[in-house]
Amino acid sequence: MRYKCIVSYDGTAYAGWQRQNGKRSIQQTIEEALKKIVCQDIKIYASGRTDAQVHARGQVFHFDCDKKFADFRKALNSQLPKDIYILSMEPVADDFHSRFSACYKHYDYLINDGDYDPLMVNYCCQTNRKLDIALMEKFSKIFIGEHDFTSFNATKKAEVENQVRTIYRIDVKRHGNMIKISYYGNGFLRYMVRILSQCLIEAALGNLTEKQLTEMLEAEDKRACHYNGQPQGLYLMEVSYKPYLVAPVAEW
Amino acid sequence: MRYKCIVSYDGTAYAGWQRQNGKRSIQQTIEEALKKIVCQDIKIYASGRTDAQVHARGQVFHFDCDKKFADFRKALNSQLPKDIYILSMEPVADDFHSRFSACYKHYDYLINDGDYDPLMVNYCCQTNRKLDIALMEKFSKIFIGEHDFTSFNATKKAEVENQVRTIYRIDVKRHGNMIKISYYGNGFLRYMVRILSQCLIEAALGNLTEKQLTEMLEAEDKRACHYNGQPQGLYLMEVSYKPYLVAPVAEW
Repeated sequence: MRYKCIVSYDGTAYAGWQRQNGKRSIQQTIEEALKKIVCQDIKIYASGRTDAQVHARGQVFHFDCDKKFADFRKALNSQLPKDIYILSMEPVADDFHSRFSACYKHYDYLINDGDYDPLMVNYCCQTNRKLDIALMEKFSKIFIGEHDFTSFNATKKAEVENQVRTIYRIDVKRHGNMIKISYYGNGFLRYMVRILSQCLIEAALGNLTEKQLTEMLEAEDKRACHYNGQPQGLYLMEVSYKPYLVAPVAEW
Repeated sequence: MRYKCIVSYDGTAYAGWQRQNGKRSIQQTIEEALKKIVCQDIKIYASGRTDAQVHARGQVFHFDCDKKFADFRKALNSQLPKDIYILSMEPVADDFHSRFSACYKHYDYLINDGDYDPLMVNYCCQTNRKLDIALMEKFSKIFIGEHDFTSFNATKKAEVENQVRTIYRIDVKRHGNMIKISYYGNGFLRYMVRILSQCLIEAALGNLTEKQLTEMLEAEDKRACHYNGQPQGLYLMEVSYKPYLVAPVAEW
């Protein structure tokens, strides 16, 4: 039996999703909790890795398990630490794959542009300077559509040769001092959301013109852009297994 | 020269405001940072203690220091860890006292009554059951005004004999799954806001009638109420040095 799980986690205490020697990872923590219930080693497969300090409200993973449990999700949550929580668990077809079946992903990037907030250290990027979100929204249009995002990610060409991805939609919203940039796209490469977000911040601060940003994109060159946003502001919100039609309306 | 400071902090990593042997406290952390700048021992005096895990967005403390600095606040912030931040620092009259000059305080208590949220573990109380805020608001009226709050706090009578306090206003607001209870009063005893908040939660869950809550208050007896809310939901929002006239409108 294959299970699909949606999981929410606070990435603060972890070295990211993927298992790493000597470091605490989300994957390892969930696999260890699963082992306590199932009494055998089970490997879980995520829709993609999240980096150290990055959060998730809708990461998806799957695993295979032949045993049955009355309330598997509740049992698993009871073995997990407080900062990881399985929101849903359901049996799926054997050919479902959390990564390869995914149609699009939704990421949010949070920025506090008001006074420095010591309570948000691990939950947003803090600029200490006010940002013009109308400008950010205007610049974000450069990224919309199908583009080669080679300039705006850290995945090596040797690893993933084709770096063409489609971004369906970007929303920039403000709630008080908190700015939320929401991205919907068919795939995001390493650091891509953080790099795009930092470009929009730099644009809002007047450090980057529309022409410069367009040239960076067109360069298709890893050396074109040196910006990268802090991981703490990044949230994997949803992995969708239905084609993108109309973007879900992001709510505050 | 006497200085008044307003400080914001994330209480998660601390054993509370007050210095304690062998434990990391907010007071100690700020005093150590001050010492690095002023090069002498300086004692700071807060408007009141906050307990372990409790947060502040407007705690006030004062201290005396004869040295002058170009940007004292910036210098102090540069020596503080990321989870403590001095919002303002200003010279005040020598007879100003953060505790004895205070007129009223504003505390917020945050409750998530939706799905368990692993990202909010340290920042709110989580009930896992929906609460009727109209009921909470109705019950909160019992606490408004001048009352002997002996039944609803953990301060010993031997320590503070007079446990009469005035609550000017209580607001209960919802934003999605997050409920915020705001308290404005001339003084709050140990655990008082947490106990009152848990009473309102129990009332909303149907575990407490209006008659029972009124009887608890009238009992003026430490044994009358056994409820206490989690510290993580509590925020000291403001200490006011002007008499309470019209409550500041709490914003979401």
